[in-house]
Amino acid sequence: MANITKKVSWSSRGDESGPAGEETPLLNGSEQSRPLTQVHQVLRSTLRGRPKEIPHNEKLLSLKYEVKPVASKIVIFSIIGSMRTSQCLIELIRASFLASLTHIFSDIVKFTEAGGLSISLILWVVLNCVFVMLGAIMVAFFEPIAAGSGIPQIKCYLNGVKIPRVVRLKTLLVKVLGVICSVVGGLAVGKEGPMIHSGAVVAAGVSQGRSTSLKRDFKIFEYFRRDTEKRDFVSAGAAAGVSAAFGAPVGGVLFSLEEGASFWNQMLTWRIFFASMISTFTLNFILSIYHNKPGDLSNPGLINFGRFESEVMEYNLYEIPLFMGMGALGGMLGALFNVLNYWLTIFRIRYVHRPCLQVMEAMLVAAVTATVAFIMIYFSTDCQPLGPDHNEEYPLQLFCADGEYNSMATAFFNTPERSVRSLLHNPRGTYNALTLGLFTLTYFFLACWTYGLSVSAGVFIPSLLIGAAWGRLCGILLTWADPGKYALIGAAAQLGGIVRMTLSLTVIMVEATGNVTYGLPIMLVLMTAKIVGDYFQEGLYDIHIKLQSVPFLHWEAPATSHWLTAREVMSSPVTCLNRIEKVGTIVDILSNTSTNHNGFPVVAQVSADDEPAKLCGLILRSQLIVLLKHKVFVELARSRLSQRKLQLKDFRDAYPRFPPIQSIHVSQDERECMMDLTEFMNPTPYTVPQETSLPRVFKLFRALGLRHLVVVDDANRVVGLVTRKDLARYHLGKHGLEELQLAQT
Amino acid sequence: MANITKKVSWSSRGDESGPAGEETPLLNGSEQSRPLTQVHQVLRSTLRGRPKEIPHNEKLLSLKYEVKPVASKIVIFSIIGSMRTSQCLIELIRASFLASLTHIFSDIVKFTEAGGLSISLILWVVLNCVFVMLGAIMVAFFEPIAAGSGIPQIKCYLNGVKIPRVVRLKTLLVKVLGVICSVVGGLAVGKEGPMIHSGAVVAAGVSQGRSTSLKRDFKIFEYFRRDTEKRDFVSAGAAAGVSAAFGAPVGGVLFSLEEGASFWNQMLTWRIFFASMISTFTLNFILSIYHNKPGDLSNPGLINFGRFESEVMEYNLYEIPLFMGMGALGGMLGALFNVLNYWLTIFRIRYVHRPCLQVMEAMLVAAVTATVAFIMIYFSTDCQPLGPDHNEEYPLQLFCADGEYNSMATAFFNTPERSVRSLLHNPRGTYNALTLGLFTLTYFFLACWTYGLSVSAGVFIPSLLIGAAWGRLCGILLTWADPGKYALIGAAAQLGGIVRMTLSLTVIMVEATGNVTYGLPIMLVLMTAKIVGDYFQEGLYDIHIKLQSVPFLHWEAPATSHWLTAREVMSSPVTCLNRIEKVGTIVDILSNTSTNHNGFPVVAQVSADDEPAKLCGLILRSQLIVLLKHKVFVELARSRLSQRKLQLKDFRDAYPRFPPIQSIHVSQDERECMMDLTEFMNPTPYTVPQETSLPRVFKLFRALGLRHLVVVDDANRVVGLVTRKDLARYHLGKHGLEELQLAQT
Repeated sequence: MANITKKVSWSSRGDESGPAGEETPLLNGSEQSRPLTQVHQVLRSTLRGRPKEIPHNEKLLSLKYEVKPVASKIVIFSIIGSMRTSQCLIELIRASFLASLTHIFSDIVKFTEAGGLSISLILWVVLNCVFVMLGAIMVAFFEPIAAGSGIPQIKCYLNGVKIPRVVRLKTLLVKVLGVICSVVGGLAVGKEGPMIHSGAVVAAGVSQGRSTSLKRDFKIFEYFRRDTEKRDFVSAGAAAGVSAAFGAPVGGVLFSLEEGASFWNQMLTWRIFFASMISTFTLNFILSIYHNKPGDLSNPGLINFGRFESEVMEYNLYEIPLFMGMGALGGMLGALFNVLNYWLTIFRIRYVHRPCLQVMEAMLVAAVTATVAFIMIYFSTDCQPLGPDHNEEYPLQLFCADGEYNSMATAFFNTPERSVRSLLHNPRGTYNALTLGLFTLTYFFLACWTYGLSVSAGVFIPSLLIGAAWGRLCGILLTWADPGKYALIGAAAQLGGIVRMTLSLTVIMVEATGNVTYGLPIMLVLMTAKIVGDYFQEGLYDIHIKLQSVPFLHWEAPATSHWLTAREVMSSPVTCLNRIEKVGTIVDILSNTSTNHNGFPVVAQVSADDEPAKLCGLILRSQLIVLLKHKVFVELARSRLSQRKLQLKDFRDAYPRFPPIQSIHVSQDERECMMDLTEFMNPTPYTVPQETSLPRVFKLFRALGLRHLVVVDDANRVVGLVTRKDLARYHLGKHGLEELQLAQT
Repeated sequence: MANITKKVSWSSRGDESGPAGEETPLLNGSEQSRPLTQVHQVLRSTLRGRPKEIPHNEKLLSLKYEVKPVASKIVIFSIIGSMRTSQCLIELIRASFLASLTHIFSDIVKFTEAGGLSISLILWVVLNCVFVMLGAIMVAFFEPIAAGSGIPQIKCYLNGVKIPRVVRLKTLLVKVLGVICSVVGGLAVGKEGPMIHSGAVVAAGVSQGRSTSLKRDFKIFEYFRRDTEKRDFVSAGAAAGVSAAFGAPVGGVLFSLEEGASFWNQMLTWRIFFASMISTFTLNFILSIYHNKPGDLSNPGLINFGRFESEVMEYNLYEIPLFMGMGALGGMLGALFNVLNYWLTIFRIRYVHRPCLQVMEAMLVAAVTATVAFIMIYFSTDCQPLGPDHNEEYPLQLFCADGEYNSMATAFFNTPERSVRSLLHNPRGTYNALTLGLFTLTYFFLACWTYGLSVSAGVFIPSLLIGAAWGRLCGILLTWADPGKYALIGAAAQLGGIVRMTLSLTVIMVEATGNVTYGLPIMLVLMTAKIVGDYFQEGLYDIHIKLQSVPFLHWEAPATSHWLTAREVMSSPVTCLNRIEKVGTIVDILSNTSTNHNGFPVVAQVSADDEPAKLCGLILRSQLIVLLKHKVFVELARSRLSQRKLQLKDFRDAYPRFPPIQSIHVSQDERECMMDLTEFMNPTPYTVPQETSLPRVFKLFRALGLRHLVVVDDANRVVGLVTRKDLARYHLGKHGLEELQLAQT
C-alpha cells in the first residue's frame, strides 16, 4: 500500500481502452489546463523526465472520471440496439410496399392480356428500370461508397483501416433508400449487407453525439471521439445489424469478432452482445405490434427461414458425406461466381467509371432481369395446385389455370427472402426439377452480374437463394429424402463458397433456423466449401478489398514469412522530429507528400548526417496539425510564455475531420518559432529490435491494434518504422511468399 | 518477389502459434543438427548477429513442415470431441445406477416401516457415508487437486498460470470416480464442473500423444509438446466439456473465451468450436442408441432442462423489472453463499488440513445431508396426486397415500438435474410454497457447506436448484404467472450470483433451454446479479483462486493503476546471464532459491559493479536445465568442438516435467566450462521502457500471453523484469489501489 507512488503519465488514459490506445492524443486530466511553461523549464524537465508527484485527492477525481464513460457506454449500446428500430420500420413499410407491387404485377399481366404480352412486359420493365435508376443515381452521384453490400468496407474499418466516409450520415441515407430501390426494382439482391452497414453507421453516429454533416454537436459522449472507441461502437452496430437481420444475436457477436476485433476484450464483447440482444428485442417488440400480437416477443429476425422441427428434419450418419459433397460443389460454384465477378469488376474499373455509365449499366441489368424472369415464367409449365398446405402468401396465378399457381413465378417474383423460405419448407412436389435447374442457372448469372453495380445491394440472400434452389434440386434427385433439408445444406454451401465465412455463418444459420441439430452438418459443409473454394479463388469480400488496394491485415502472418525480419519489412530511412522542433520544419514535413506517414518518431537530437538518434516518443500527424492550428509555439528569442493553452477538448473537437496541412496558415515569423512536442507525444511507444521476425511483428500489430511500430537498434536508436502497409504487402501466393505493389495513395 | 531474402531466425517457429510464443525452446528445422561450433567462431558470430542466408529449397521444406501440424491438429480436435464418449458412457451407467438406488431407498423405507423409521434412517445414512468416504479418500489421499469443481484450476491454467498436476491422468481418474461417489452419496453437488475439468484433461492428454504417468510415449503429436499448444488444447477440451454437459456448443466456445483465451485467434476459436460440435454430435449419437432411436441426432446435452415452448412461455414488458428484481435477489443470495463459503474455507485451511480429518468432514456432511432430507420428508405433508400429466420418472410414494407422491422427496432424492427440470416444467400446484421455502433454506446451507470439501463436486447444478426453488416460490406468490418461467429466471439469478459469469452463461442457458426468447431477460438477470453480487463479494471461483495465492491476471488492469509505471512494478535488480556463461554460475543461479524466476535476460557483459548491461535475449529456466542435462558445454581451455549435439527433440522430450536443478549432477571440472547461450535464447524478447504505465504493461501481458517482460532503459540496458506476480499484486480494493502480499511459493 504505502510504497505506491502516484505519478502523472501522459499516455495513461489512452492505455485503458482497447487496442491502438497508444495513438490517442489525450492529455491527462490533472494537467489539461496547465499553460505551457517557459522554454528553460521545459528543457530542464526534458532532461529529468516528466512524471511529477501530485496530491492524493487526484485519485478520487480520476475514479469519478472513469465511471462516467462506462455509464455512457451502456446507454449508448442500448441506444444502438434500439435505434435499429427505425430500420425495422423502414423494412416493414417496404414489405407492405412490395406486397402491393406483386399484386400490381399480377394486375398488369391480367390487364394487358388483351393488349398482348409485349405491353405488359414493357410496362414491367419500365417500372423496374425507374426504381433502379433512382437507386443508382443516388449511389453513383452522391455517395459512391454506399455501393454494394458494405461488408467489405466494414471489414476494413474494423481491421483498423480508415476508409473515408464509410460511417457518415449521408452514406446511411443513400444506403437505406438505395437498397429499397434495388429490391423494389426487382434486382437479384438482398438487404442484409446494407442492414449490417447501416447498423454500423448508426452506432458510429450515436456514439459521437454529433453530426458533422448536419453541423450539430449535442455536446454529449465527447469521451468517445477517438478512433479506438469509435471502432468498438462500429463493431457493436454491425453485430446489432446481423442480429436484427437474421434474428441471431450470438451470430452477430461472432460476426463482429470474426471480421473485426483482433483484441479479445471481455467487456467489449459483453457490450456487443448486449447491443445485439437489445436489437433482437426491439425488433421482436415492433414485429409483435405489427402482427397485432403485442407482448409476444418470440419472433425471429427480419429474415425468417422458418422453424425447422426436429422430428421431420432428422439426418442420418450416411448423409454426412453427401452433405460434404454438396459443400464441395458449393465451394466450386462459389469460386466460379467470384472469378466471374472479379473479371467483371476489373472490366468495370477500366471502362465503367463514369457515374452516368454506371447508372445506365444498372438500368440495363434491371431490364434484363425483368425480361429474363418474364420469359422464364412465360415458358414455364410448372403449375401447382393451390392446396390447403401451400405456404405462399402471395401465390401468382399468371398463366396457370384457376386454382393453380405458377411455381417459377413464385421463385422469381417473391422477395428473395420469401423464395428462400418456400424452397426450404414447401413440401415435396412444390417445384419440379426443370424449374429449379433453370432458375439456378439464370439467377446465378444475374446475381453475379448484379453484385458490384453502383447500387446498394447485398449478396447474402441471392447466394442463399441460388444454393437453396440447387440444393432442393439435389434433394429431388435423391428421391428418398426431404428436399427442404437439402435446400438448407445447399444454401449454406453456396453462401459459404462465395463469402467464405465459417464460424459466424454456422451460428447465424443455426439461429436463423432455430434448430441446433443442423449445427454440425452446416459446419462441415461450410468448412468444405471454404477449403474447396480457397483452392480456386479468394472470398468475394476479400477480392473486393484487394481490388481497392486496402492494407488489410489477415488473422495470421503468411506462413513461411518467418524468414523475414523487421529490418527487411520496415520503411527506412524514417522522418524523425526533435523534441523541440522548429515550426517551419514540421510544416515542411507534413506538407511533403512523399512522407505520407501518420506517425513520426520523436528523437533526442537529429544529427546532421542522418545517423540514427535515440527514440523519445511518437507523435501523430493529427496531433501535429491540431498543435499547429492552435499555434502552440514557444518563441525562443523572446523567452516568454506562450499564452495559448491547449486542452483535451481541442483534440476531441477536431476529431474526426482533421484539416489538411494546406488549410493551416503559418506566417514566416511563426515558422521561426519552436514547438515543444514533449508534452503531447506518446513517451513510450511500442518498439521492436531489427531482428524481430515478421510473424512476431504481425502479432504485435494484430494483438494491440497498432498502426505504426518503431524499429530500433540495440542502443534504442530509431532505424525504421513499420506500418500496416509494410505488413500487408506480403501474402502467400501460388509461388510462395509474394510481395504486392501497393498504390501510393 | 525478388527482394525478399530468406533468413534463418531462431525464434521464428515459436512466433506462429499464439501467445507466449516467445518462451518456446525451439530450434529452427534447418539448423537442428548443426553441432556447436568452436568458441572463436561462436564469439565472432555473436558480434555479427546470427541470421545466415540459406538455400532456396528450404522454403519448400518449411511449407511441408507447416502443413503437418495443421492436419494433426484437426485430427486431435476431433479425437477430443469424441473422447468425451467415454465420459458419456460413464454418465449413462451412473444414471442407471442412481435410478436403482432411488428404488432401493424407497424399498428401505417400506421394508423397515415395521422395524421403525430409525432403522431405515440409519441404513440410508450409512449407505451414503460409505460412498462419500470412498470419494473423499481418493481425493484427500491420492490427488488433492481433484477436489471441488475444477473450474478455478482450469481458469488459472488457461490464464497462463502453471498449476502442478491439473491435467494429469491420475487427476482425471480420481475426478471421474470421485464425482460418481459424491453424486451417489447424496451430497448437494453437481457433475458439470468435474465434466469440464475432465474434458480439459482428456484434451491435454490426447494432444501430447503420451502419458508420463503410464510411461508410454506413442511418438505422435510431438509438435504439440509446448505450453502454448497444450493450452489451446485444454481450452478446446473445456469447451467440449461444456458442450457435452449442457448441449451448448456455442456456450462452450464462449466459456473457453470468457474464462481463458486472452488472444483472440480465429483459427483457435474455429478449432474449439469444431471440438464442441463433435462433442455434441458424439453425445447425441450415443444417446440416440441408448434411447433406442439410432440416427435421431436431436438430443440436447446430458443435462436436459427440457424444451421451453414459446407459446406457453411468453413474457411481457412489465415482467422485466420483476426479473431484474429477482436478479438482484440472486446476487445477494449468491454473495451470502460466497461469504459463508469464504469463512468456511478459511476455517478449513486452518483446522481441517489433514487428509483423515477431511474424509471425516465429508462423511459428516453426507450424514447430515441424509438426515436433514429424511426429517424434511418425514414432516412434509405435501402429497401430490399421481396425475396423468405428472412428469416424474421416479415418483416417490414414501409416507403418502397410494396414488400420491411426496413432492419434498421429489425435490430431495432425485438427481439434482432431474429436480431442476421438474421445478422448471411441472405444472402449477406440483409444489406448495412451504415445501419450496423449506427446501431452498436447507439446500442453500447444505450446498454451501459441501462446496470445498475434499470431494470431487461441482456447484453449477446445486446453484441452479436453489435458484429454481426460490424462483418457483416467487412464481407461486405472484399468482397470475407460470411458475416454471420464474423458476428459470431464479435459477439463472442464483447461478449468476454465485459464479458471476455473464456472457457464456447466457448462451449456455439459452442453448440448454432451446429457446432464444429468454435471451434478453436471462442476460439482464445475470447482469443485475453480477453487479449486485460484486458489490458485496467476489465470485466463488475468484475467491478460491485468491485463497490459493495464484497470480491470476484479470481482463483489464485495475482502474486508477495508470499512476504506476513499469519502474515501480518491476522486480529489480534482476539476475542476468552473459551470452557465454560459466556453467558454475548458471548452476548457482538456478539453485539459488531466492532467484526463483523462470526467465533470465541474457546481456552483452555483466559488469562487476552491477551496472545495467545491454540486453541480448531471454532464456528460460527450463531451457537452461535441458542444456545442463545434456551437458552442452564448450571448453575454452582446450578449444575443441564439443561433441554433444542438441536437437529440438531433446526439448520436447523433457516437456512438461523438467527435472529440478538438484537432480542434475555437474562435476567440479564441468563447472569451469562455459556454456554458449546465443543459439538457444530468444534473441528478440519483448521489452518496455521504464516509464511505461501499468495498464500498458498489463495489456502486453494479456494480449501476447507473456510470462516475463524485460524492462530496459533508454539505451536498451536491462533494469528490471516484470512477471505475472508483479502485475497480479495490484488490485482495486475498497480504499483504492491495493498491493497484495503474495506468498513466496
